[in-house]
Amino acid sequence: MKTRFVLIHTSHAGNVGATARAMKTMGFGDLVLVAPRWPNVLRREETIQRASGALDVLENARIVATLDEALDGVSHLCATAMTPRDFGPPTVAPRAHFESLLKSELMTHSQQALEAKNTLNIASNETPLAEPVAQAGVAFLFGSERFGMANEDVYRCHVALSIPTNPQFSSLNLAAAVQLIAYEWRQALGGFPVHSSTPPAQQADAQQVAGMLAHWEQALAAIGFLDTDAPKKLMPRLNQMFNRAQPTQEEIHILRGVAKAMLQTAAQAKH
Amino acid sequence: MKTRFVLIHTSHAGNVGATARAMKTMGFGDLVLVAPRWPNVLRREETIQRASGALDVLENARIVATLDEALDGVSHLCATAMTPRDFGPPTVAPRAHFESLLKSELMTHSQQALEAKNTLNIASNETPLAEPVAQAGVAFLFGSERFGMANEDVYRCHVALSIPTNPQFSSLNLAAAVQLIAYEWRQALGGFPVHSSTPPAQQADAQQVAGMLAHWEQALAAIGFLDTDAPKKLMPRLNQMFNRAQPTQEEIHILRGVAKAMLQTAAQAKH
Repeated sequence: MKTRFVLIHTSHAGNVGATARAMKTMGFGDLVLVAPRWPNVLRREETIQRASGALDVLENARIVATLDEALDGVSHLCATAMTPRDFGPPTVAPRAHFESLLKSELMTHSQQALEAKNTLNIASNETPLAEPVAQAGVAFLFGSERFGMANEDVYRCHVALSIPTNPQFSSLNLAAAVQLIAYEWRQALGGFPVHSSTPPAQQADAQQVAGMLAHWEQALAAIGFLDTDAPKKLMPRLNQMFNRAQPTQEEIHILRGVAKAMLQTAAQAKH
Repeated sequence: MKTRFVLIHTSHAGNVGATARAMKTMGFGDLVLVAPRWPNVLRREETIQRASGALDVLENARIVATLDEALDGVSHLCATAMTPRDFGPPTVAPRAHFESLLKSELMTHSQQALEAKNTLNIASNETPLAEPVAQAGVAFLFGSERFGMANEDVYRCHVALSIPTNPQFSSLNLAAAVQLIAYEWRQALGGFPVHSSTPPAQQADAQQVAGMLAHWEQALAAIGFLDTDAPKKLMPRLNQMFNRAQPTQEEIHILRGVAKAMLQTAAQAKH
């Protein structure tokens, strides 16, 4: 879905750069600045430094004078703000809202497909009025660092997103808020995969663990730690620990090497 | 659960300040710096400026020389790093890992309670060895801005958390990574509530919507927009739109006011 980030009256160049970086880490690239404090903010040194390589986001960013000019092609507007005291859009948490937004989006699409099909079978001379439109796109609106969003801008939005924060300290940095919203929205859209650069290890089976433990039992007796006449629960306890450790085949190999060295050393000590 | 954030070899004072702020917004306060570049980093101007009021986190932060000294009282270590190529802890996404960590924590607690109960009934003279311990606490480890975490530090960890990012641009700022981890962990622990400052509005019932639409039907006919002899689907279409709008009682009042003004104006126009 088309996704746009709109920064309104942003003061700090660093926040614009950090916003570009935060967006790009989550795979978004459509940034619009409404009347930023610095008209040349996209080219300022601090902006470029904090963008840390997300220069394409800055290059493609637009600067506009009014919020109106920032809203072409997006239909669902999310304020990130406290709602005004008198009235305003519903206050919602990002995770829950994104989930329900994408569900209703899905439903609207299937309904539209059905309606389009039905329309073909109806002979009608009436002018078609607007059908319920699918979300053409979503915009996330962020107010200025100092004053947040103006009430008149919040009134235009479909929801007010509230990031759940410490009730005693809710002061999120602007770029941190962008990072969290971008992350939650990307997760809702399906997320990026997580890769390990480590080759998968093969877990030892229970028989291999039992073989290793038998080897250790011999070795621990040889070095005088295990009293075979009064073994107590030593071996079952080690068994429990190694069960939790879920050793790999390679680790079983290491542990057997340790047992072997204990046995050899004990044999030498006898001479 | 005890939660600690550990920054290792951090270079930029601004990131230390922003980390304190990010932690506090999510209700965490235990910060340890391992060998930061600036020994006086907790008192530097940039740190304090970027902390933006999270000064108590800075005041309570500890600076230590080695990672060892940062790990008292925590039992589950989460690296935030790519795993080394040869081997290392499993790479996991934060959301999924936190969920399973808290589930197994819950299970361990119930199991321990059960074992403690059983122990009371057993007469035994054996020295108690370690029981499976519940997670005493969790630490999140963050490497330096430039080089990330050293392999030997990653090897000590239980998991390597990988924040799912754009495969083409995964360069998260250090404080942004702290913000995301702190947020996900807080969400996993139950989250903070989201409050609206707007009083809840009372949605109009279907009868009130129907009454308003009847009023509008009259008014639209009076101003010559609705042809009562060939009404087409105008009123049902408006009905659909207002169903989606889910008007409040106050909005029904406004819409009836509009209908009334249309009717009055139409009556004046006849004179």
